[in-house]
Amino acid sequence: MTILDPVDLTKRLLACNSVTPADGGAQAVLAEALTSIGFDVHRFSTGEAPDGPIENLFATRGKGGRHFAFAGHTDVVPPGTGWESDPFVPTVRGNLLYGRGAVDMKGAVAAFVAAASRGQPDNGTVSLIITGDEEGPATFGTKALIAWMAERGIRPDMILVGEPTSSARLGDTIKIGRRGSVNIWIEVPGVQGHAAYPHLASNPIPALAAVIGDLSALHLDSGTDWFQPSNLEVTDIATGNPAANVIPGSARARLNIRFNDLHTGADLVEQVREIVLARAPEAIVTARISGEAFLTAPGTLSGLVSDAIGDCTGLAPELSTSGGTSDARFLSRIAPTVEFGLVNATMHKLDEAVAIPDLLALTDIYAAIIRRALA
Amino acid sequence: MTILDPVDLTKRLLACNSVTPADGGAQAVLAEALTSIGFDVHRFSTGEAPDGPIENLFATRGKGGRHFAFAGHTDVVPPGTGWESDPFVPTVRGNLLYGRGAVDMKGAVAAFVAAASRGQPDNGTVSLIITGDEEGPATFGTKALIAWMAERGIRPDMILVGEPTSSARLGDTIKIGRRGSVNIWIEVPGVQGHAAYPHLASNPIPALAAVIGDLSALHLDSGTDWFQPSNLEVTDIATGNPAANVIPGSARARLNIRFNDLHTGADLVEQVREIVLARAPEAIVTARISGEAFLTAPGTLSGLVSDAIGDCTGLAPELSTSGGTSDARFLSRIAPTVEFGLVNATMHKLDEAVAIPDLLALTDIYAAIIRRALA
Ligand SMILES: [Zn+2]
Ligand SMILES: [Zn+2]
Repeated sequence: MTILDPVDLTKRLLACNSVTPADGGAQAVLAEALTSIGFDVHRFSTGEAPDGPIENLFATRGKGGRHFAFAGHTDVVPPGTGWESDPFVPTVRGNLLYGRGAVDMKGAVAAFVAAASRGQPDNGTVSLIITGDEEGPATFGTKALIAWMAERGIRPDMILVGEPTSSARLGDTIKIGRRGSVNIWIEVPGVQGHAAYPHLASNPIPALAAVIGDLSALHLDSGTDWFQPSNLEVTDIATGNPAANVIPGSARARLNIRFNDLHTGADLVEQVREIVLARAPEAIVTARISGEAFLTAPGTLSGLVSDAIGDCTGLAPELSTSGGTSDARFLSRIAPTVEFGLVNATMHKLDEAVAIPDLLALTDIYAAIIRRALA
Repeated sequence: MTILDPVDLTKRLLACNSVTPADGGAQAVLAEALTSIGFDVHRFSTGEAPDGPIENLFATRGKGGRHFAFAGHTDVVPPGTGWESDPFVPTVRGNLLYGRGAVDMKGAVAAFVAAASRGQPDNGTVSLIITGDEEGPATFGTKALIAWMAERGIRPDMILVGEPTSSARLGDTIKIGRRGSVNIWIEVPGVQGHAAYPHLASNPIPALAAVIGDLSALHLDSGTDWFQPSNLEVTDIATGNPAANVIPGSARARLNIRFNDLHTGADLVEQVREIVLARAPEAIVTARISGEAFLTAPGTLSGLVSDAIGDCTGLAPELSTSGGTSDARFLSRIAPTVEFGLVNATMHKLDEAVAIPDLLALTDIYAAIIRRALA
């Protein structure tokens, strides 16, 4: 069996322009590499424009025993303009490899494949759950892969997501959970009228301001052992009224709540709705839950990932739950899930780059995780 | 001396397309009529595009004695589309004369000229102060006429503004004052950031909401014998932040205050500024005072106008201070000023029209006012 070079495979993935939802040939590169090291590769595409179609890939090797899965994505965010070198031409300067997706997360995907090319214990199963829809709406990606697996009775015992969780140094941070996120829109209706005749109008702004006051004073929780306190931010207010002499006919606000596992999105929406309706009984409250909070309480999985990191780097990683949402919010419903990957300093930025020594070290760490997980 | 027909003169004025700041020949029509009945007519134009140039006209007849002045405007607001007949082709249907400016206020200007054509007491002076910039920014209109008069030592003893003050019936309402109006803009700065990392950002919305709460609770006054209470309305709120995950970098509100003669615009701006800075010390407060409040306390002038109305119509007019601003806010600084004119039901609307019997009755009333004012 071939031993794959993570740097070479990262370069081949970076050369594919896979700005979400496009694939740009990235999953074909991956499928070929995985096939060459003995994986059964299943690919399917799902969804329609504009958010699809999406390329998804499930690959598995081994039968029976413990089932360890790595999850990741091949899509990337748009590069923006102003890069020093072409974001889709992998370029080495010093010990850095530049390209969109270098750390988020083509580098980690390549490192895991390279780690898997070093083999695995006989009595275990290793899988890869790879989507092209993580940076987009995530409608046709990991959710579809989970459904695809469920139909076939495939259920890993533990899942490692390769998101770039490291902060200052490779290995300093594992994510064992993520806060949930919900956006809520509030519209307080009024009666439009001329400012000179306020008795003929009903200004919705004072009620909305009172609602914002109540929401700003709301204490959601004090945090948990693993989570910081949940937090509510009013991210927009608007009436869209250009006329200085006109009392507007409605006033709107938009909230974002980042919440820990003491809450569900639906409970928070109800709590906000009650606060709003107490001040403005005619108000309309709508919501979109981007993701529920999840926590994989410290235990076997986080322990073996920490140990593997310690073996290779000497670091004792922090178990974090900070930051935005990731596909771990879906995967944690089917198995214990933690996230560990490269240093995230340049993710989603101009001149995204991975340190080549990090790529090699991450390959070692992932190989140690596979060994420990299937031991 | 000719006796002029108010209906004919109104029609000649309505035929001029004088959408502010254009004159459309209206003041030439007026000058010719005034000259024919013995007035000295002075015309000057002032200001530059886009708000000018503006045609202004001052006409006077008689020397010494009491000096009574009529003030008005020949410009009109844009007609809009959907008129039954051309807004600049005066058209009679039934007893109504249609055309933009019929009630606001070419009809009243014509009625006053027709009234003046009936003569005046020997020992008095009658003047007309006519601008083409009342419906626009009013920068080059009445203010310029007042300066022009001041340079020549001309100062009337009392002024009647011919705005359409009547409500249900001609003669039911005189305006003896108007509230002032000021617009105030508040900008609360913050620090933009990602909603997932609120400690790196500073959300300006809660402070702005608290400011709006304070402003909404503000009791400006309880009204006076002649004025309703001053009133503050928040007419707009905005952040202009389209991104649901972003804490905005600033939040803005716009206020309009309609105030009685217990306040000045500048005092109110300072009061608002103090309230804002107490909640948001970094906030920026800007203001534009559209007009100060004015009151010509009931007395000689309102008495003689009321009496003239009573003689001609049998009505005892209400002395009102409601509604928006007018050029009386400038004129009242040089002499007692009241406003009386046609029924305002169709002003600034499609199919603006004056009842021909009202035009004839207003001519009678204005003639009675001239007699009483110079008696
Ligand atoms: Zn990612
Ligand atoms: Zn007018």
